[in-house]
Amino acid sequence: MKFVGHHILSVSQFDRADVEQIFDVADHMRPYAMRKRITRVLEGAIVSNMFFEPSTRTRVSFGSAFNLLGGEVRETTEVKASALAKGESLYDTARVLSGYSDVIVMRHPEPGSVAEFAQASRVPVINGGDGSNEHPSQALLDLYTMRQELQAQDRSLDGLRIALIGDLKYGRAVHSLCKLLCLYDDISLHLVSPPELEIPAGIADDLTAAGHQIEVFHSLEPGIHEVDILYVTRTQEERFPSQDEANRYRGLFRLNQSIYTQHCEPNTVIMHPLPRDSRAQAQELDDDLNQNPNLAIFRQTDNGVLVRMALFALVLDVVDEVDNHAKPVTWFTAKRNEPLRP
Amino acid sequence: MKFVGHHILSVSQFDRADVEQIFDVADHMRPYAMRKRITRVLEGAIVSNMFFEPSTRTRVSFGSAFNLLGGEVRETTEVKASALAKGESLYDTARVLSGYSDVIVMRHPEPGSVAEFAQASRVPVINGGDGSNEHPSQALLDLYTMRQELQAQDRSLDGLRIALIGDLKYGRAVHSLCKLLCLYDDISLHLVSPPELEIPAGIADDLTAAGHQIEVFHSLEPGIHEVDILYVTRTQEERFPSQDEANRYRGLFRLNQSIYTQHCEPNTVIMHPLPRDSRAQAQELDDDLNQNPNLAIFRQTDNGVLVRMALFALVLDVVDEVDNHAKPVTWFTAKRNEPLRP
Amino acid sequence: MKFVGHHILSVSQFDRADVEQIFDVADHMRPYAMRKRITRVLEGAIVSNMFFEPSTRTRVSFGSAFNLLGGEVRETTEVKASALAKGESLYDTARVLSGYSDVIVMRHPEPGSVAEFAQASRVPVINGGDGSNEHPSQALLDLYTMRQELQAQDRSLDGLRIALIGDLKYGRAVHSLCKLLCLYDDISLHLVSPPELEIPAGIADDLTAAGHQIEVFHSLEPGIHEVDILYVTRTQEERFPSQDEANRYRGLFRLNQSIYTQHCEPNTVIMHPLPRDSRAQAQELDDDLNQNPNLAIFRQTDNGVLVRMALFALVLDVVDEVDNHAKPVTWFTAKRNEPLRP
Repeated sequence: MKFVGHHILSVSQFDRADVEQIFDVADHMRPYAMRKRITRVLEGAIVSNMFFEPSTRTRVSFGSAFNLLGGEVRETTEVKASALAKGESLYDTARVLSGYSDVIVMRHPEPGSVAEFAQASRVPVINGGDGSNEHPSQALLDLYTMRQELQAQDRSLDGLRIALIGDLKYGRAVHSLCKLLCLYDDISLHLVSPPELEIPAGIADDLTAAGHQIEVFHSLEPGIHEVDILYVTRTQEERFPSQDEANRYRGLFRLNQSIYTQHCEPNTVIMHPLPRDSRAQAQELDDDLNQNPNLAIFRQTDNGVLVRMALFALVLDVVDEVDNHAKPVTWFTAKRNEPLRP
Repeated sequence: MKFVGHHILSVSQFDRADVEQIFDVADHMRPYAMRKRITRVLEGAIVSNMFFEPSTRTRVSFGSAFNLLGGEVRETTEVKASALAKGESLYDTARVLSGYSDVIVMRHPEPGSVAEFAQASRVPVINGGDGSNEHPSQALLDLYTMRQELQAQDRSLDGLRIALIGDLKYGRAVHSLCKLLCLYDDISLHLVSPPELEIPAGIADDLTAAGHQIEVFHSLEPGIHEVDILYVTRTQEERFPSQDEANRYRGLFRLNQSIYTQHCEPNTVIMHPLPRDSRAQAQELDDDLNQNPNLAIFRQTDNGVLVRMALFALVLDVVDEVDNHAKPVTWFTAKRNEPLRP
Repeated sequence: MKFVGHHILSVSQFDRADVEQIFDVADHMRPYAMRKRITRVLEGAIVSNMFFEPSTRTRVSFGSAFNLLGGEVRETTEVKASALAKGESLYDTARVLSGYSDVIVMRHPEPGSVAEFAQASRVPVINGGDGSNEHPSQALLDLYTMRQELQAQDRSLDGLRIALIGDLKYGRAVHSLCKLLCLYDDISLHLVSPPELEIPAGIADDLTAAGHQIEVFHSLEPGIHEVDILYVTRTQEERFPSQDEANRYRGLFRLNQSIYTQHCEPNTVIMHPLPRDSRAQAQELDDDLNQNPNLAIFRQTDNGVLVRMALFALVLDVVDEVDNHAKPVTWFTAKRNEPLRP
């Protein structure tokens, strides 16, 4: 098994078969995430959730995914609360922590830090985001959601037409997603950004080398015609050289229901890696889209739990054991357990 | 079932039968909280404990209550560690988090924020305190404790004589408690506060409309005569317009054993929503009362676990299942598991 | 049973038989910590991990130890997030929290605070470090590691030759370790420190009174000859009167592979309570020792889990029940579960 006992550090480590395997396992996790039944397959196992940078969504999603498999979560949420503040190396921290748990999820602001940490760890490490570098579980859940949304239209990822919109320069989610799209065939991409926030040339080259079609747009409306999916991103303000520079781009591209109705094909799916910036000056995705059934942003985050369950199950080699430890659910389960659209 | 799948946002949503039902379920939880036996009824369930304002007591109490029912706890303790800091709306945060757990407990400094959050959540939300507005589980555990203390004297809540003492203007615990008292009959209240910190007129009107008797006092000693319960509160310094203004009231009403002996009827019960302010200038409840068997403040916090277990069990519809998932306790259980007074 | 229901506050409360008992129980915990099998003996039990001072290693180690016995962990990691900030006394905090859990682990910057807390607690309290005073689980895991390292050479703790190196004045780990060494026979100690950071006279007197041999060194190389174990410590910069004064000692004694090869007997074991300071100016233990099989620092932290499991099992009286609640492990377990050296 290729995944068992391995680190998950970058989407670059996967080929198409790997990605399909992750998605198949994620599908298998759905009844557990939806509380149709529970599984205790990881009863007694411990994940160490090391978040050296603020995060609610990713941290809780990984933690819940591990709980849903029956395991326990130990958590660290602040770099200043750690021995790193006393001059400890990542090597030492990794060696020590890998004695406390069966698997580690780590987020850290420094690009490359998670890979460095993983080299010293004696248990598998999953990258929960290392600065502007990688966030592989986000890219996987995004692609998984695209697959699911297309399946509802009896289509597959091959032949996908997608618009990537917003800050394509600093958005690590976009970069990792593009790497995954290179594993598929015949993708058509609209790259919609301000001229200064275009996608890095290396990534554009990779897409072209994979045989994909790229078209660049510097304004929103023409870019959202004739695509299946709009993938909108917020301006990654915290990664800009200065707040002043970041402010120049706040609210530049704003999608709302009226623009959507006027320019998009019917049933164009709207995605966003979240959080979306709802401050009055930003609003890259207007709240008036909340009733649009094609808004898939919350199906994305729901799917994040499935994908993270799949990563844990694969790395810890329990995929075939999950159903053997299943039990019925005896408590009230809310509608939230149903995807809003099948 | 009225509670199943519903939010718990305000004491105003309860009628007397609801409150009695919560209390009966809380009684049923006692052997589990006292470690006479354990239950695994919520095995596999997850609560998301979202505390956007510092809290130890309420946060740990809710978390332990969920653990005692067999469930897991995912926790967020800082607003700055959250996507809200990146401009995310409460709506988005709620929709996302409600995909990660079966029930959410939320504390937030803004009045009304928890109700707003609940509107977008797809799982039940329990208000853990929203600023100066509501703290329903505190009011319920206070009233539950009063019921228990009176039962020990073969009496019921109807006909209760109670003195509310201290900062009656800003104390949300007092306000919520008064709303609950309106559901009962023939209550006599002594409202003991500085003139500037009297109870809001609306609450006083509600009490009168419920047929209760109110008497206002501006000094401590006359106010504590001829009541069954003293409900003492600290000055809510953090809710005052300025620290200077708050300081004027620090230590204004200080109850100690000598005053108690001189002015109170025998066996007058002493309660406090805690924390009590033990700084030398404050001490609204002197430490010399710690040996007084009528000091019920730690029975209150112990009862908080029971009441919160009851809320979870009611909302998640497992009241009738709790005993079916019971197991014996095999470890040492300390005396703390016994209420200090039966 | 001497441990059942008792607080663990200081190494001074143990005699030699107690220490041996802890170590025997720790040995018994090894297959569970190594994931050869799991135990659910504390299913339904709750530990409250109260860390009023930053800590990753100790906090996660205690939490994982409790999870490995099947119990749940409720955690508080910041003094400002606590009611103490609103003027609550340690007495009140302890009484309240002891109603939420079966056992409490507490770290606090004030010497004596944990003992004060324990007096009011109705459940057992384990000292996780109280300022410059005590850190009993660290001293126990250090001594347990020494025992294990010597056993690999068919020797026992009696007759041990050890060098204590670095900041012997402020290092609480060293102080607690010395107290434990007084329970054994015929120990020979090299005390290697700058003249200003010598071990406190009281501790030196205790060692002499126990019949041990002490030799004082003010430079590294002569101090590390002819000993079985080097116990190196970092400068406890945060305990110095000023950072300027602390800086004078940073990097004063630096052990690396070359010095080790030149001055130490073969197989001299290298220990450190961690974290080691890896900043360029410090490096009391150079990274080039990482490949030295006698570097026991990560075996120490691995052993910390065993020792803390033992303390929980003893205090909660489940030592004889652990194996009765054992189950097989069904997931991938990494090599980290193997000690690096048998």
